[in-house]
Amino acid sequence: MFDLLLLNALHRGRRVDVAVEGSRFAAVEPAGALAQAEARERLDATRFLLRPPFYNTHTHQAMTLLRGIGDDCALMDWLTREIWPREARLTPEAIYAGTRLAILEGLRSGCVAFNDMYFHQPAAIRAAAEMGVRARIGLTVMDQVSDHVENDATLALRETLPPTINLALAPHALYTTTPETLRRVAREAETLGLPLHTHAAETAAEAAVAKERFGFESPIAYLDACGILRPGTILAHCCHVTEADLGLIAERDCVVAHCPQSNQKLASGVFPWVKAAKAGVRVTVGTDGAASNNGLSMLAEAKAAALSAKLGAGAPEAFRLADLDRAVTEEAAAALGFPEAGRIARGAEADLILVDLETPFFAGGGDPDANFLYAADASCVDTVLCAGRVLMRGRAIPHEAEILADARAAAETLRG
Amino acid sequence: MFDLLLLNALHRGRRVDVAVEGSRFAAVEPAGALAQAEARERLDATRFLLRPPFYNTHTHQAMTLLRGIGDDCALMDWLTREIWPREARLTPEAIYAGTRLAILEGLRSGCVAFNDMYFHQPAAIRAAAEMGVRARIGLTVMDQVSDHVENDATLALRETLPPTINLALAPHALYTTTPETLRRVAREAETLGLPLHTHAAETAAEAAVAKERFGFESPIAYLDACGILRPGTILAHCCHVTEADLGLIAERDCVVAHCPQSNQKLASGVFPWVKAAKAGVRVTVGTDGAASNNGLSMLAEAKAAALSAKLGAGAPEAFRLADLDRAVTEEAAAALGFPEAGRIARGAEADLILVDLETPFFAGGGDPDANFLYAADASCVDTVLCAGRVLMRGRAIPHEAEILADARAAAETLRG
Repeated sequence: MFDLLLLNALHRGRRVDVAVEGSRFAAVEPAGALAQAEARERLDATRFLLRPPFYNTHTHQAMTLLRGIGDDCALMDWLTREIWPREARLTPEAIYAGTRLAILEGLRSGCVAFNDMYFHQPAAIRAAAEMGVRARIGLTVMDQVSDHVENDATLALRETLPPTINLALAPHALYTTTPETLRRVAREAETLGLPLHTHAAETAAEAAVAKERFGFESPIAYLDACGILRPGTILAHCCHVTEADLGLIAERDCVVAHCPQSNQKLASGVFPWVKAAKAGVRVTVGTDGAASNNGLSMLAEAKAAALSAKLGAGAPEAFRLADLDRAVTEEAAAALGFPEAGRIARGAEADLILVDLETPFFAGGGDPDANFLYAADASCVDTVLCAGRVLMRGRAIPHEAEILADARAAAETLRG
Repeated sequence: MFDLLLLNALHRGRRVDVAVEGSRFAAVEPAGALAQAEARERLDATRFLLRPPFYNTHTHQAMTLLRGIGDDCALMDWLTREIWPREARLTPEAIYAGTRLAILEGLRSGCVAFNDMYFHQPAAIRAAAEMGVRARIGLTVMDQVSDHVENDATLALRETLPPTINLALAPHALYTTTPETLRRVAREAETLGLPLHTHAAETAAEAAVAKERFGFESPIAYLDACGILRPGTILAHCCHVTEADLGLIAERDCVVAHCPQSNQKLASGVFPWVKAAKAGVRVTVGTDGAASNNGLSMLAEAKAAALSAKLGAGAPEAFRLADLDRAVTEEAAAALGFPEAGRIARGAEADLILVDLETPFFAGGGDPDANFLYAADASCVDTVLCAGRVLMRGRAIPHEAEILADARAAAETLRG
């Protein structure tokens, strides 16, 4: 007796039947093979494309409550004048409301996981656990310690977390930390057995700080000297990197979280994906926070990443759809500590989306996965499962109206 | 007795009541003012943001049937090996089916008008007229005349077209026409009183043709020498333009159709919007065809255009939301020959969209128009009116299933 059967879905060019049991795929077979199987629930998936969902490798979820503040400003002005003063008013309740809103927006574009670096983290953990998505929650480290950082309380929860949630140490950036702080965090990562997550080489100004304040040729070289480039460290942005930096990132087995729309909106620069791939760098994609993107659709971000890679390389053939597809699914899942998620296969974690093929994006023919990534908007994402649990069906998500109302109230308080 | 009343919609930061009579706005008043007015139909618009719709100034609509063909190829390979051989099999029935599919996709992202350059144009006119959208249909001119060009038949329809449809002369590009052809077309534009629409300065290869084959410093200088830069000429792309070119485009009162996603996907280059605006150029936005974008969402294209402008200028503050908003609404409507459309005002043509505010993009606060353009996907576009006619309501469009089925059949025939 399976928990759920999806029958006759289109997956990678063929029709399949899929069985889910607990949090995993119990069977993935050619269509028809499971037609007689017993299950608590069965769904005729004929009109759907079956795909792994998206995994968002860099964001600040609760910034949904700050969306649109300081639009059309430069990064440093935006942070110091617009964002930080408002963040000073954040409460755990606001983080909970803003994180739920971000998760909702993510689910509606087919995303089941996020790598968060923000404040009042137990509230973010509660939001992720309740809504059933995967999350990596960062213990935020900045020298000007904020009252909103709840690292000790978060670490105390470590043994109680569900298997869909894990922790990271998240030194904010080289311009908000001393070398001593970074070295201490790197040692703690070793001691605690936690991965790292940091902003890296986002802007030209940051590159200037690495050089002028710390005497290093590049932010990446400096972060490496501080011990931050450990296996699995997630480096967000990486717009200002040299060939040597890319070689180092690959050698240290770090992961880039490429955030093309945020980098464009803040005019920060362009991550050179094609060069990075040639150097052997593991690349994934993140939305960044809603205040600098301003959307949280990983579908839109994936397309932006592909277009940016093609333009950046000066050759459309230099970047292929298959590379994009893996980067936003299984490679991202692995980067967030979920190596058994991100693919549709027997024994893998049952994360999936069903995309409605009865929409304009698919009627003109062509590879459905390409049409999804290159042409569709999120309105065709019908159903989302994470770890075997149905989080969205027919575009409906439990408690949606309540989540919107709570976010509206929290935003009003915060914006004042 | 009005035809339609929309009550209490949110528009530019205030609540308004709107009355539609025939194809026009009969009244736009502060909320409450029209509460007692009589109308054939009334809609409580409290949950909606009221905006002008999008106007797409460069596309090849029926390429929806070729979507995904030759993805990840360079422009010239893509055209000569992948696209042109398949276009040789186009029929009027395919153009009708593919254009209807494109109009459907456009409506679902809030777009009511398109500037088309393609084949079997009477079929495209029929699709636009039946579905109620605005269109400018190009009489396509290439030296290697295609059997699919039906310019004479299209011109013969001129006096019978509804007020929502008009014609243009559309010389394809400088690399598919001789100087004699371009000069002849420019004279015909004068004689017939028709505007022009052409590809211009799209790629570095095109710039090389202008120089090596025709001896001009730039494609724009060459097109001007041939008489193509007339008032209102729509120049699609303009990635490879000098300061002098921008000055010339402004002086001649031409309009740029900026197609950022197509230019990125084909690695063609980047149109310098901020420089162009400083030079006084009128800028609008187009999706290009579905085979090179690959989506037709003007909402996605608008955001891509803004991000490209900010990154291109190297300064986020150099490009403002208000400029984007006007460019994709009233300026684009005027560029397509509909100067009385594109704004919500008494006496203007009643084109509008209603955006559902009960969606994640708006719950966190901030300017709703900014959230729509910078953060939303098209799933929040609920209702579309064009010239007073309701074309979509509750995301439902008449004959949608039939349009999808027809497109599917046509695509199968075409792709073989």
